[in-house]
Order: sequence, then structure tokens, then C-alpha cells
Amino acid sequence: MDKDFMTSDFLLQTETARELYHEHAEGLPIIDYHCHLDPREVAEDHRFRSITELWLGGDHYKWRALRSNGVDEYFITGKASDWEKFEKWAETMPYLFRNPLYHWTHLELRTAFGINEQLNPETARLIYDRCNELLQQPEFSARGLMRRYRVEVVCTTDDPADSLEYHRAMRESPFETRVLPTWRPDKAMAIDNPETYRRYIQSLAQAADTDITTFDDLLRALHLRHDFFAQHGCRLSDHGLTRFFAEPYTDAQVHQAFDRVMAGHSLSEEEANRFRSAMLYEFGVMDAEKGWTQQFHYGAMRNNNSRMFSLLGPDTGYDSIGDVGGALQMSRFLDRLASEGHLPNTILYNLNPADNEVVASMLGNFQEGPQPGKIQFGSGWWFLDQKDGIERQINTLSLLGLLSRFVGMLTDSRSFLSYPRHEYFRRILCNLLGNDVEQGLLPYDGYERERLGQMVEDISYRNALRFFNF
Amino acid sequence: MDKDFMTSDFLLQTETARELYHEHAEGLPIIDYHCHLDPREVAEDHRFRSITELWLGGDHYKWRALRSNGVDEYFITGKASDWEKFEKWAETMPYLFRNPLYHWTHLELRTAFGINEQLNPETARLIYDRCNELLQQPEFSARGLMRRYRVEVVCTTDDPADSLEYHRAMRESPFETRVLPTWRPDKAMAIDNPETYRRYIQSLAQAADTDITTFDDLLRALHLRHDFFAQHGCRLSDHGLTRFFAEPYTDAQVHQAFDRVMAGHSLSEEEANRFRSAMLYEFGVMDAEKGWTQQFHYGAMRNNNSRMFSLLGPDTGYDSIGDVGGALQMSRFLDRLASEGHLPNTILYNLNPADNEVVASMLGNFQEGPQPGKIQFGSGWWFLDQKDGIERQINTLSLLGLLSRFVGMLTDSRSFLSYPRHEYFRRILCNLLGNDVEQGLLPYDGYERERLGQMVEDISYRNALRFFNF
Amino acid sequence: MDKDFMTSDFLLQTETARELYHEHAEGLPIIDYHCHLDPREVAEDHRFRSITELWLGGDHYKWRALRSNGVDEYFITGKASDWEKFEKWAETMPYLFRNPLYHWTHLELRTAFGINEQLNPETARLIYDRCNELLQQPEFSARGLMRRYRVEVVCTTDDPADSLEYHRAMRESPFETRVLPTWRPDKAMAIDNPETYRRYIQSLAQAADTDITTFDDLLRALHLRHDFFAQHGCRLSDHGLTRFFAEPYTDAQVHQAFDRVMAGHSLSEEEANRFRSAMLYEFGVMDAEKGWTQQFHYGAMRNNNSRMFSLLGPDTGYDSIGDVGGALQMSRFLDRLASEGHLPNTILYNLNPADNEVVASMLGNFQEGPQPGKIQFGSGWWFLDQKDGIERQINTLSLLGLLSRFVGMLTDSRSFLSYPRHEYFRRILCNLLGNDVEQGLLPYDGYERERLGQMVEDISYRNALRFFNF
Repeated sequence: MDKDFMTSDFLLQTETARELYHEHAEGLPIIDYHCHLDPREVAEDHRFRSITELWLGGDHYKWRALRSNGVDEYFITGKASDWEKFEKWAETMPYLFRNPLYHWTHLELRTAFGINEQLNPETARLIYDRCNELLQQPEFSARGLMRRYRVEVVCTTDDPADSLEYHRAMRESPFETRVLPTWRPDKAMAIDNPETYRRYIQSLAQAADTDITTFDDLLRALHLRHDFFAQHGCRLSDHGLTRFFAEPYTDAQVHQAFDRVMAGHSLSEEEANRFRSAMLYEFGVMDAEKGWTQQFHYGAMRNNNSRMFSLLGPDTGYDSIGDVGGALQMSRFLDRLASEGHLPNTILYNLNPADNEVVASMLGNFQEGPQPGKIQFGSGWWFLDQKDGIERQINTLSLLGLLSRFVGMLTDSRSFLSYPRHEYFRRILCNLLGNDVEQGLLPYDGYERERLGQMVEDISYRNALRFFNF
Repeated sequence: MDKDFMTSDFLLQTETARELYHEHAEGLPIIDYHCHLDPREVAEDHRFRSITELWLGGDHYKWRALRSNGVDEYFITGKASDWEKFEKWAETMPYLFRNPLYHWTHLELRTAFGINEQLNPETARLIYDRCNELLQQPEFSARGLMRRYRVEVVCTTDDPADSLEYHRAMRESPFETRVLPTWRPDKAMAIDNPETYRRYIQSLAQAADTDITTFDDLLRALHLRHDFFAQHGCRLSDHGLTRFFAEPYTDAQVHQAFDRVMAGHSLSEEEANRFRSAMLYEFGVMDAEKGWTQQFHYGAMRNNNSRMFSLLGPDTGYDSIGDVGGALQMSRFLDRLASEGHLPNTILYNLNPADNEVVASMLGNFQEGPQPGKIQFGSGWWFLDQKDGIERQINTLSLLGLLSRFVGMLTDSRSFLSYPRHEYFRRILCNLLGNDVEQGLLPYDGYERERLGQMVEDISYRNALRFFNF
Repeated sequence: MDKDFMTSDFLLQTETARELYHEHAEGLPIIDYHCHLDPREVAEDHRFRSITELWLGGDHYKWRALRSNGVDEYFITGKASDWEKFEKWAETMPYLFRNPLYHWTHLELRTAFGINEQLNPETARLIYDRCNELLQQPEFSARGLMRRYRVEVVCTTDDPADSLEYHRAMRESPFETRVLPTWRPDKAMAIDNPETYRRYIQSLAQAADTDITTFDDLLRALHLRHDFFAQHGCRLSDHGLTRFFAEPYTDAQVHQAFDRVMAGHSLSEEEANRFRSAMLYEFGVMDAEKGWTQQFHYGAMRNNNSRMFSLLGPDTGYDSIGDVGGALQMSRFLDRLASEGHLPNTILYNLNPADNEVVASMLGNFQEGPQPGKIQFGSGWWFLDQKDGIERQINTLSLLGLLSRFVGMLTDSRSFLSYPRHEYFRRILCNLLGNDVEQGLLPYDGYERERLGQMVEDISYRNALRFFNF
């Protein structure tokens, strides 16, 4: 074993793992089929004023870590200077031993900036200055970073009412990376707040250049925007859900629920769930018609700290893992689409790892030819996007499904520095396979040796390319 | 560590593990106290027309894997030839790296047919022909395979209305393996569908040679059949449940519920749960009177794909892991039996591994002398019947109960080739113990060394023999 | 690796682990900030008549193990002699391979009595006599044992109505260990049983030297007792909950609920939950005012065996792990306190390890400066207080929070022999860190090497000292 920290054989404990990684995974480009990059920053090839902007400008993972370390909000989302914020981050680093941020941070320092020292209070100033110096150079722009990591395809996350103007701009002046939109219609389902919802419906109507007064109007407008997204290269949808919804409903009930919300009334939980059930179903049908892949990120409990929500808004580090389950609703939702012949390729991402086996065994209920791995268990997401979470997802999928057909990793990130997570994932994958070989659990000669190498390549790159039909 | 695939020291990572397995486990016969073999095939000493019949004729684990790999249903449950189906299976094999089917398949090839090559598209024809050639030989009949694996006792799974004719036939011309029936009265509880239920009650009445018009009649008929099963050597019952039921009820409520179903009415969920609660209780009392062991397999979510259910029926690969929990109901159910002095020996099998700790800690609430390990945590079941699932069950039981008193492995299988799962289990058990010894977590000299060897033997064989009183 | 059982490098698999443990953890004193010791036994410096009294007099973990092994209740809680009970325990020992009791027992034999043999039927008599001989010596009294293990602070668990007379006595004649009370007001929330509750309210009124006829009286009496506890050095509260409660309620509803219970009426589940929600909130506010830490032990399912409960009462080995979850209520409870600026330092202990990620991710929602690690994920509790449970808690906390800020281990024990659990914990902690270093997952030279040593010291001792402000 290697006592040095994060060498070129980082995470690769066996000879076989090193061989699999260096010969089959390391050199492959990246397909990042789900992320939250700002398309504008790509279109405008944004330049970063400092490493603080890149690292601490919007990364709520880091904000949580700072708060956990007792750092005052002034140095987190407050008015402290870039250097002051960076300094607090550097002070926190040694408190992050065993936290994935310790690995992410150093992977990013190494792969983006060529800095091999550990970040800590003693190295903080030097590293800060060095990063900022490099960020002045043109190859450290948004596109420069994507080029550096050999990113072939990126799918952003976009609202149906979005004009996609930056995606259009990029199509007109393309570069090495294809940047495609993803259909994320969460707001069209968010009938909890009638006032916000009505405002959203107005913006959707405007985007679709139509009127929306009835539920049928809503569906028509969504179809128009769905077509528009398709024209702009969209190949995936995505949904953020607390849980799945598959309540029985009648058309009349759903129409009436929509009317009531538009008239400013609040819905009962039962009415709201029927409405959500209808919308989820309609979105599935649309995706199936287009040959898209639908994604579901479910199980988060968001905005738990109401005081901080009122100060900072959503996505600021106050979300956590829920425990509502909902296997039966998930099954019914997928079953209805399958029964009616409308089930698109599907990726299920759970946030609570206690649900891993529920999801991994759910896949098999709806798999069918000719698409191998039609229903996918999504890679470890958010809180689970770390060594343990990735290993558990890979292991559970291996045991209950076909790892070989897995479409692999994505960053799910808002940052242009997150691409090393693909490297992280590939190393972990190769390490698990290597351990199995060394223990005699997998064959590794002749035909099977070749196939194992191909499997690494498939999961790292080729499966995604084929599955999403990029 | 051993890089060769599946050698004689397969799964045995330490010297101690190898010693424990080869000296204490390997040579012991098999007691398979729960399976789904067809007693007719044993009674008639069935001969298999091909390895396709044996492997792909009814194994829904393999069907799921094929579907996940994008294979058309024609080659799975359709009219493709034996060779065509086998060929698809061989093509799928290299996609099964890390899936337990990869190990099962090769263990079966090695132990039944003496074939040490890996199955893949290149070896498919040779292996197919070799297996089929061997299957022509008399020692590869149903009984021949049981003999080969030294199976001493097998408990099948049988409905109370079953005539047990094949069990009777086997008692009259016994062979090396005792084949005993198991009481599985799921249909007697299945009041969801009044029509099916009434038909079932008729067949039960016929089997018991009595009339059933009231709930008391039902109980009397079940008692008669329970006696009949006992006369035929039955020592266990088994129940497939979504969850446990222990609602309070009055006799009048249950009588009325039965009357209503028999009159063709549907029950409310509340009425149905009361009825289920009553039945579960009555079955427990019956088993306690006879000194049987009651088994509960709970937590599956069945027949999720309604289109495929309508085409292929149940047990065709469309089931998955549920998340309904139900610790409180489980506790209340066991408590009522215990309080009234009617708690039989009990085995609890959960399908969701997130419930492992709930089950393993539940045992202790109802353990009591003189029967050691009176309440058992059942071995990893169905989706969990693989290395990880077996290890987790063993580990959780070790931590929260007495591993030494565990009645061990069973196949739960419909196949005559599943006996190597006992070998798999024993290797995993010895490996866990060996790792503990090597790490200084368990003593291994003098008195304790001897006891550790005995513990392996007990769990592999002797505990089951004593516990079920075979 | 070391094949000898429980050497001085027990649980320490790597060079780094050994260095971290022996140089940074081994020599530190113990802060046991949560336990169930009887303060009277400390105050009176109790002498133990036999090892049976110490080990088997009240340890329901051991009672469960004995019952699981088929031992008759006569030898467990019955009238058997000390030797007979000990003999049964010694016979059961070899059946406890892999159960944490096997490690606890031998750790206690080694560290308290200097006995290095394994306990089994062959060694039973010698060990029994040797222990009893030593127990006659004054340094094996209650205080002697605390001295032996270098226990600096102990927090007992006390009811608000408790006179704290023994704590007072200890303040007047202090010894090496500070023994502080903990505020555990479970009975003040237990409105399930109106009769018991009213009796409790009377005793509380008496202790507070006031009348309690209204809910406001109740709160005033509790405040008086809270002040009294503070005067006696209390720094923590503790709550045993099935789950959290955070239902909306009005003052009128809670007043009325209290009135109804005091008038002998039973409350509906809804009324009771509102009352519980109000009490939990009020307790949080009190703790925040005093700068105390509030602890929540949630998720147990107690007294599952009603027959044994009627014979032996509570805490006799008939409890197990529940599965009711309740992340949303936990979030709402903490959010209300946080929003109003009343959130004290908090420790959350879950009993179901399937909830680990829910809890570890919940922390981050409410962390804020200046207190590092203000919200804590409590160490593996009860059934989880063993190698696997401790590792899982440490790992999950590491991944989702800041391990470095963890306040570490506690015994939660009724026994004066449980202090080696701190050693157990420290060894496991050092082993996890050592494994990470050896695998190149953590840096271990220069600045970071020093910090890793400090982190071990912090978690073993210093964090608790600072966090609780002892």
C-alpha cells in the first residue's frame, strides 16, 4: 500500500486496479450528462476574478463545512473580502480530514492548477496567489477549464420557460464541448404556492407565445416548449421530487385543481398530489415520444432552516436527506407508463442510501429490450457523491442489476472545477473491480480480461454516449 | 491473495478461513429446510432435457438479468429454441461481472458438471453440449443431483389444500434425501380478491373433506389439513407477507369479514387487516401446538409490471424490494403469541436490508429457554442471497444476537442445481470468522479454537438438525 | 496482521493506527458525559459483593444474550446463587463469538482485574474467585474503579423531581471524578398514562415546593427544578423519544390537554402529540437560556414483551430498534428553536443505523458560529455501541459533517466497569484514520501529521471538555 497522499495511483489499491484505470479509464473524454452550470458563463467564456469566486462563490457544500466549523456567516456569504473568505476556508481544511471536500479540493488543485501541496493555514497565501495568477490566463476561462478536462458533452439544467438564448449562441459558435439543455419542469408542478405558481404560468405562457387559462392550455404550452428544447438538442429531462406521485385521478379533478390554483386558492394535500401525479405522467409521455431519458432526483428535504432561507434563499446549504420512502408510488408511476407503452429511458437517483436496494431492485421490474439498461440506478448524488456513496451505489447495482450497462458518472455541479469527480469515480470503479480480481471473485485472463477492460471503458464513457444518443 | 478465479479456496482469504472451511464445513451434508422444488419432479425422479430447461426454464433471476441486458422476450420466456436461449444467456454472462449470477452459474458448472471454463460466447457451444450430454446420464436426474450434493433433508413449500400425493409417494419409496412438506397458507389469507378467495376456500373444503361456510369452519378445515401435514412429516410453516399484521379485532368482526368475502363483497383495508391479523395469530397457535417452526418472508413488492403480469403471471421476474417497515406490528404479533404461551420457534426473513437491525434486535425480545435461538434471523433471502447480503445478515446477527445459534442456509430455490449456495454460504461464514481471527478479534487456540470449529459445523448443519427436530 | 487475541495493539491494524493510539489517545483521561450510574453508589463508594453483582446484577445486554442461549430465567433474573449465575454466563461466553459482549467482557477482565485468559466453562471458577478476591480490596470500590480508569467527569441521568442529594453529598466531599447531574424530564412528557402522570406531577410539585394545577404551574415548577439542577453543576439534558414531535399547537390546546390529563382523562393521539411538541420546545428554550447541551436518544421500541414486562418491569432486555423515522419532525423541531434564537448545543442519537445519513445530514441545517460542531451526531448508541456501529457512525459523520469537531464517546452505562468502551472507541477511531493514511486517503507528514494527532486527542477528550464547558 502507498502511504503517500493522493499519488497518481490514488484510490487504486491493487495491480489490477492500476492497470484498469491507467489503460482503460484515464484517457477517456468526459460526458457530463447532468450538471447545473450556468450556460451564460459558458457562452460568454467567463473569466474568474479569483479562486474564491470559483470555490466559495456559490458552493453550498463548502458553506456548510464552514458553518460546521464555527465560522461566522460574514466570512461565508457575507461581505468579507475574497482573501478573508479564502483564509477561513484554508483554516477549515485540516478540520475536513475524511470529508470528501478534502479530496475534491486537492484533486482540483492538482488537476487544474498543478499544485501538489496540501491547503492549510501555512500554505494558504501561496496557493491563493498562485491560483489567482493562473486564473488571469486565458486557458483558465470557463471554456478553457472544460477543454482542459476534455469535456465532450455537457447537459445543463433549464426551466421550460427559459429562452435557451445562451444555448442558441453556443450552437452558432460551437467549441470543443457540446452544451445541451435539460428539461427541468419542477416549477410547472409546484402548486404549493398559488401566487408563485400563477406568476410562473404567466412566464411560461409568454415563453410559449400562447395563453394558458386551462389545464389543457398548460399541457399545450409545455408541449410547445418541449419541442423547442428538442430543437436545441435536449436529450434528457430532470425532476426534483420529495417522492414519487402516482395517485389515481380523473381529468376533471386535475382540471379543477388547476383552475382553483389559478384562481388563487390553495389545494388540499390530496388535490395537490393528484395534480402532481398527472403532471409526472404527462412529462413521462412527452419524453417517451421524443426518445429522451427522464431523470428523477428524489428524497431531499429542502430549506430546513427557515431563518436562513429568508436571508439567503434556496440552495445555500440548508438541505438534508429525507426518509419518506415511497417505493410503491415509484412502482405505480413507472408501471402506468410501461403499461401504456410510454416508458422512456429512466434514471432514478435516491438521496437516502437506505433506499439503494429499493431502487436497484426496482429497475428490473421495467427493464426490456432492445435498450440494455433501459432503467438506470443513478450515480451517488449530492450527499452521496463521495467514495463511500459511490461504492455503495456501484455495489448495490452490481448485486441487483447490471453494472456493465451503467451510464456512469456526472458532476451535478455548478462549478467548472468539478470535472475531477469523473476521475474520482473512475478510480473507485477500477479499484472495486481490481479488488474483486485479486480476491478471485472475477476472472481476469483471456476473453474475460478483455471484457473487463471494455466494461471500464463503457461505464466511464461509451455507455452514456450510446444511451443518450448524443 | 489468490488471483485465480474461483479456486478451491474461493472466498477464503485467510489461512484460518481455509482451515475452518476445509476441516469443518466442506464435508458436511446439506439440510435445505426451505425451498420451492416441485415434489413431483423428485417423486418421479425427473430427467432434464437440456441445461436450458434446468437453468432458464423457470429461473426469474436469470430472466431479469436477460431483460436488463436488452434481450428480447422471445429468447427469455418466448418460443426460441433451447440452444437460442442458452446462447443469449452465454452472451449475457460477461455483462454479469459482479452480479451473483456470475458466481452461481460457475459454481453450478463446476460442482455439477465438472466444467471449469468460464461461460461466454466463445465457450457457449462446447459447454451447452457437454452439459446436455451429462444430463442424459441417470446420475443427473433430480434425485441424482440431490445425491451428488449430499442433501439429507429438503422441505418443499405447499398449500394446505395440496394432496401431498408426491410426498406420500416418496415416503413409500424413500431414498437418501427426506423430502418433507411445508405449510404455506398464503392463499387462505388472500382475501383481497373475493372471487379467487371463494374458489380457494372450495378447494380447501374439498381437501379437508368438510364444508366451509363460516370462519369457524375455515379454522376447523385448516386444523384438519395442519394435522394431515404433520402426519406427512411437516415441521415448518411459511408465510409470504408484505408486512406483519397485528390489529386488534373481535371474533364478530372476523366472522363478519369472512361472511362478506364469501358473499362476494370486497373488504375495506381496515377489515382486511383485521382478518389478516386473526389468521396470522391462528396459524401461530397451530404451529406452537405441533412444535413446528413458523417462517415469515416479508417485505416484497410483487408483480410491479402489470402488463407483463397479464402476459406471464406471477414469479416471472417483476418483483422488488419494498419499504413499508412495520416493526411495531411485528412486535405486537409476536408479543400476543408469547403472552399467551403460544409462540412457536420462529424465523424472520426481511427483504429490505435496511431492516436488518430491526429484525436482529427484535429476536431478543422473545428469546427464552430452553430452546437456544428460539427466534431466528433468517439467512439473506432472494435479492439478498449473495455475498454482500449474506455477510450483512451474518454480521448484524453477530452483533445483535447469537450467530452461534443460527440455523444457517437454505436455497429457497426452484432448481435442483442451487445446492452450491450452501457451499457459498459456508465459505463466506468461514471467511468472516477467519478475518476476525487474523485481526485478533476472535481467539483461536486451545478451548476456543475447538469451539470455533464446532460453531462452523453447527451453523452449517447441526443447528438446523436440532432446531427443526428432523 | 496480529493473530493473537486482544493484544496491546487490539483493533489497530496499521503502523499509523498504532502510533496515533499509543501516542495520542491511550494516555488521556475520560470524560463520560452521559451514563446511567447510580449516584448513590458513587456517593457511598459502593463495594461489590461479587463479579456477579457487577456484571449480571442489572446488565440487560447480558440477560438478552443468556436468554438467546436458552438459559432459564432462574439463572438470569431469578434466585440462583451468584456462582450459578456466573457459571451460566461463562458457559454462554463461547456462544458469544463475534458479539460485542465477547470483547467487552475480556476488555473488562484485562483492564480492571488484570486477567488475560478467556472466560469459558474451563476457566470460570478460577476467574470467578480471582475477581471476587480483588473486589474485596478497597481500590475496587465504585470510586476505586473510576480512579483506575482516570475518569474526570461523569454525568448521571436524573429526573427533575430528584433531590440530587447524592450529587450534593459529592460536592461537599469531592474526589478525583466530578459527578454531575443530567436533566432527563421524560416523565414530565409521559402523558400516555393519566394516573401515573398525575402521581409524577405531585412528586414534581413537592420537589419544587410549589403547587401544580395548570400547565403554567407545570412550566414554572420545571423552571425551578432546572435552576436547581444548574446550581448543582448540570450542563446537559437528555430525552428518550420514540421520535421527534413538532406539531403546530396553540397555548389553549396545550393548557386544555394538561387539564384533561390531570382530571384523569386520556388524550387522543393528536392531543398527546401537541402536548409533547410543546414540552420538547419548552425544554429546548430552557436549555438554551442556561447554555446547556440538549441530547436526544430516539428510535427505540420499548417493552415489547408484555408478559416479561409485567414480571420484571422496564429495562430488563425487552427493547429493540424501531423504524418510525421522522426526519421532517426532527427538522421542524430544531427549526423552530433556531428561528427564535433558542437552539442550544444539541446531540442527536439515533437507534436505527438506517437513519445515520438522515441525522448526519440534518446537523448541517443548523450549524452556525461561533460554536464549532454546535449540532452533533451522537456516538453509536445502545445496540450500535460496538465496532460496526461505531465505525458506521464515525464514517457517516466524516462524510457528511466534521469528524474533527466530534465530542466523542460516552458509556451510556449503569456499570462501573464500562469505561474500557472509551478505549474501544479510541482504538477504532485511530484504526480508521490509520487505514486512511496507509491507503493514501489522508496526508501524514509535516503540518497535517501534527493535526491528525491533535484530532485524535480532540475527539478522545478535548472536544468534550470545551463543548460542554466543564
